[in-house]
Formats: sequence, structure tokens, C-alpha cells
Amino acid sequence: MTQISSLGEFGLIRRLTDKLPQQQPSTLRGVGDDAAVMNFGDNQVLMTTDMLLEGIHFNLEYVPLKHLGYKAAVVNFSDIYAMNGTPTQITVSLGLSQRFSIEQVEELYSGIRLACERYGVDLVGGDTCASMTGLTISITCLGIAKADEIVYRNGAKENDLICVTGNLGTAYMGLLLLERERQAWAQSDSKAVGQQSGQTAERSVSEAVFEGKEYLLERQLKPEARRDIIAKLRKAGIKPTAMMDVSDGLSSELLHICSQSNVGCAVYEDKLPIDYQAAALAEEMNLNIVTCALNGGEDYELLFTCSLSDYEKLVPLDDVYIIGHITKTEYGKHLIGRNGEEINIIAQGWNAFTQE
Amino acid sequence: MTQISSLGEFGLIRRLTDKLPQQQPSTLRGVGDDAAVMNFGDNQVLMTTDMLLEGIHFNLEYVPLKHLGYKAAVVNFSDIYAMNGTPTQITVSLGLSQRFSIEQVEELYSGIRLACERYGVDLVGGDTCASMTGLTISITCLGIAKADEIVYRNGAKENDLICVTGNLGTAYMGLLLLERERQAWAQSDSKAVGQQSGQTAERSVSEAVFEGKEYLLERQLKPEARRDIIAKLRKAGIKPTAMMDVSDGLSSELLHICSQSNVGCAVYEDKLPIDYQAAALAEEMNLNIVTCALNGGEDYELLFTCSLSDYEKLVPLDDVYIIGHITKTEYGKHLIGRNGEEINIIAQGWNAFTQE
Repeated sequence: MTQISSLGEFGLIRRLTDKLPQQQPSTLRGVGDDAAVMNFGDNQVLMTTDMLLEGIHFNLEYVPLKHLGYKAAVVNFSDIYAMNGTPTQITVSLGLSQRFSIEQVEELYSGIRLACERYGVDLVGGDTCASMTGLTISITCLGIAKADEIVYRNGAKENDLICVTGNLGTAYMGLLLLERERQAWAQSDSKAVGQQSGQTAERSVSEAVFEGKEYLLERQLKPEARRDIIAKLRKAGIKPTAMMDVSDGLSSELLHICSQSNVGCAVYEDKLPIDYQAAALAEEMNLNIVTCALNGGEDYELLFTCSLSDYEKLVPLDDVYIIGHITKTEYGKHLIGRNGEEINIIAQGWNAFTQE
Repeated sequence: MTQISSLGEFGLIRRLTDKLPQQQPSTLRGVGDDAAVMNFGDNQVLMTTDMLLEGIHFNLEYVPLKHLGYKAAVVNFSDIYAMNGTPTQITVSLGLSQRFSIEQVEELYSGIRLACERYGVDLVGGDTCASMTGLTISITCLGIAKADEIVYRNGAKENDLICVTGNLGTAYMGLLLLERERQAWAQSDSKAVGQQSGQTAERSVSEAVFEGKEYLLERQLKPEARRDIIAKLRKAGIKPTAMMDVSDGLSSELLHICSQSNVGCAVYEDKLPIDYQAAALAEEMNLNIVTCALNGGEDYELLFTCSLSDYEKLVPLDDVYIIGHITKTEYGKHLIGRNGEEINIIAQGWNAFTQE
């Protein structure tokens, strides 16, 4: 018997999907990008799916159900935007244990509906069933894009600029903050009151301890997909050569783009966009914020590469940061430290199987 | 706090999806049929999703992983055929607890791959993550159909014939058989050997007790989607007026078609197709096989209605049975017993929330 953790999530997926045949002429791209691509007519159809499991991806002690629903939908939209597409429809499957009331399920759904409303996506189906334990959420999202607009992970070329949006590691610092307060609270006297399972998060931690750190919580609990960036890039006439969303951490995503594009990369430590609340908390917790920015997951920012000739168009764009450039494969994948030292980029990130 | 069981699965879905807005012009049909329908160009795109949870939908003590994978894929294909479409792509999301080895996950995947190969469907993506407990499988399937070929649940008209394929209640009898043997075996001396969690089913029950009942097991463990019937109907020039697959039991599905088409129905007890192995086991277990045929789930046969004018074309078709006819709404929904008595059809079937 081989432990799954010996392969990790990506190793397992590679092994399971090795030499998958494609029989349908409508299948243009299967496993291996943010979304699959199908050709059903005028537009191409994108398809992505995400599963969230209680105890692994979220802890209901501090995640409000409405936020959870919102996030579960938005992370799927993010995958479609990361292909330079527009999300159009989702299906939602829920596994619910007996401890959930209808009101709680409605609360979860209200977050999903809000996300759909904001992003203009239709909820078109799903499956709802009982579960023995905990809450399971599985969402599949369709999107559309014109054939020549789709951006894959494999198009990065030598000398391309590497860009990232927003900031990195912030959602992870939000998670550490919530986790720290949960533990502190669990040790406090109020323990007996709050440990009823299935209670909503609002009551379980006091708000005072989060003062000045609200942005970290928002990034963890209610991330947004970067639809705005996709619109800006289109308006500026920039088509990225490769793109993906940052869900497992920058290091992991950089390695995906490099291996699929068969290139190397150089990324500069001092160019990584870091939020000051995240930096302050890292300091307070005695953590290296650069490590958190490289390996913390769930930022749902966009990582993309584009031609050096787009430099002039790129510079005026708000919230887009050039962090490095694509190199020949032989160079390897390096982070260039503040003193010029070259550090190998390895994916330590967000790997649920090895975290256990 | 309102218990979910007070509403049941369909009540909960109705409540959660009440007044869902549709913002995308490509969405033709959302929640409420076997699949959603989108218009992306030349063909229309169908989308359906199903979630299977360990302990609710399957018991790994007697369900081999390869069969489970096969079934998980096929039940989605069945939903697409039930719209008169052709399944084309699936995504597969898995939640896996630590007790699963890579070999076991590969075994599960080999069943999914086999189903894809047999039905000409491409596996185009998915999500694989750790789970705290048990196995979760969520599959979403896309399909295509020409706009004028799609069959919904709401098109049944007065005097239409009601037809069903194959036989009914057989998968349920297979489940009862497996459950009976599991209990018998759990009480026997071999108990200690077999209770390792995660063991495959082949070793846990002896094959001798299933002699002469193999077909029941096959129907439960390895159902097929009725692609053949869809092809036959097309060849015969019959387009059903309403159709769905029998996953929750005939009674439940008849009520869906009647309420969505705003009609009543009369179904004849002596016309229900019953398999002799299923009838024999029901006799042995002192059960009413008609009740099992009406309420047993997971047959994945097709239930459809078609115009009386198609009668001549319908009769020569193998494995298609006329079981009754559609009536005015005022008549109600009745089973006509062998002595002519009218029995109200109610859905007792396969409701995971009320079974708990």
C-alpha cells in the first residue's frame, strides 16, 4: 500500500490522468490547466471544478457559512478568469450531515447566490445529499471565451515579463490569525459555550482582537476573483502568454507555468507585492513574510506572463506588479534575494495531502 | 433550527433554488430537470452533476472500488441520455481520507476510465483533495444535443403512452442482497479478518451465496446507462414528449413528470417489468416486489412518455414496455392494481435525508 502523501496532490493527479484518451472532437484541452476547454460552436466552453471539505479546507468554528458559500463559488470563477474567459454557469453539490439545519444551508446558499449575482453567473443545477460527517461542497463552473482569447499555462516564452496582481501571502496570514485566535479562545473560560458543533463563526471569536487586521480576514474569508484585471488587460490590448490563478501559492504556480511552458524563471524578492497588515502580523508571529508570500495559498490573484513588448502598456495598470522574467529552461527557477543571491524555487505550498 | 429531514431532498432543493435569477443569455434551462441546458452555439450543451458519499451512497465493505468508479460516471451519463443528449466530457472531484492508498484510488479511477472509454466520454479535469473521513466522489458531466432533440420533463400530454425500459426494482433487490450477506458475514467467525477499514469488497463476502443472483448484483454494482434505447428511439423516429432516468424510483419519477407537465397518470401494476431473480429474492425475503419496483432506486432505466401516434413504432422495440398513459391533472396519479383498484402513487422512495 502506497500512502497518497508520498506522491502529493499533483503527483497523484498526474498518475491518475496519465495517458487519458480523448474521444470527443469537442475536447480541446483536458486535465492540466485551470479549466478544460471545449469547442461547442461559436465560443469555446471552459469547465472547472473545486471541492471543499470541512476540516480540510475550512473550519466552521471561524468561517461564517455565507462567506464559505461566497468563497466556494468565487474560487471557481477565478479559475475561469485565469483562462481569460468569463464564468457563465455553476452547479453546486452539497453533502450535509444531520447537524446542519435548513437555515444554515440557506445561509451557505445565500453566499453562493451573492457571488453569482455579483459576477453575473447562473446557478443551473446540483445535487444535495446527506453525509455521515461534516460539510462537503463541490462546485463546477462553465465559462466562455473566444478561441483566440484563451490563455493557457504553456505559452510563456524566454524574456517574457512575469506579473502578479494584488498582493501575496495575505490570505495565508488571515488563516494564521484566525487559527491563533481560535486556539486562544479554546483555552479560555468561554470554552464550554462555544463548542457546540455547527455553530456559526460570528459568536465564537471576539471582534476586538482583529482590529487593524480586518483586511487579512477579508482576504481569507471572502476573496474576490480578479475579473477587473482581465477587463483591464483586455482594454489595454495585452494578451498574456501564460496565466493561472494563485491558489496553491506563488512558488507552486510558477513551477506549473515553467514546466508546462518548458522555460525557467527569475523572480525578484524585492518585487513581490506584500500587504503591510500581512507583514506586520508576520513580524508579530516571528515568520518570514517572503516565505508566506511564496507558499501561502488562497490569494486568488492572477499570475501571468506577457511579452516584453507589452511593457509600456503594462506599467500604467493599477495593482499589477512585474516581479521577474522568464528565462531559458537551463537557467532553472530562481528567486533572486535582496543581496543578489539565487535561491531555488521549490513548491512547499498548500498541499493538503502532505499537511495531514 | 429546522431539521433538513422535515423538507426532504426535493423540498430542500426547491427552497434553496427558489427564484434563482438567470443572467446569462446562454442559460436555457437551470435547476429542475436531469441536466441544465446552455446554448453556446451550434449545439446545445447539457450539464449534470452527482455526488456520492461513503456510508450514504455506497458501502466499501461490498462495493469494489472499480465498480464504484464505473457507476459514479455512468449515473451522470444516464442523466444526459435522459435529456436525449450525448455525454461528452466529465470532471471528477475526489475527497480521500488517509486510509486510501494510491493503488485503491487508481482502482477507482480505472472504473471511471472504463466507463468513459465505453461511452466515448472524455475525462477533462477535476480536483483531488484529502478528506477527514471516508470517500467523496463528485462528478459533473457535459453533453450535447441539437436544440430540437432535447427532451425535458415537462412535455407529457394527456393520452401519451408511459413507457419504461429494462426492469424495475432490480438494483434495490441487489442492494438488499448485499446488505443481508454483509450482516450474516459480520456475525460469522470471519469477522476479525475482514473489518480492516478500506479493504476491497472482493474478499469480504463469499461468492457461493450469490449463485443464481448474479444479475441482481450487477444491476446494483455496475449499472449501465441506456444509450442503446436513445439510439433505438432515434432510429425508429420517436421523440419522447417527456423523459427522465429512474434513479430515485418509478413513483418519485412519475410524480416529477406529472407535476412538471401538469398532468395525471394511470400506470398498470401488471405491466411493470419485473426481473425473475428480483421477484424470487423478494419472495424469499417476504417483500412485495411491486413496492420494490415502484420505490427502489438506482435502476437507471429510462421513463418516458410519447404520443399515442407512435404506438406502432414503439411496439417492435426490444426492452421498452408500455406501462400506462397520461391523464388530465384532475384524474390524479394512480397505480391500477391487478383487480382494477386505484392506488394513489406517492413517493416513498430513495430519500437519503429521511432514511437517516
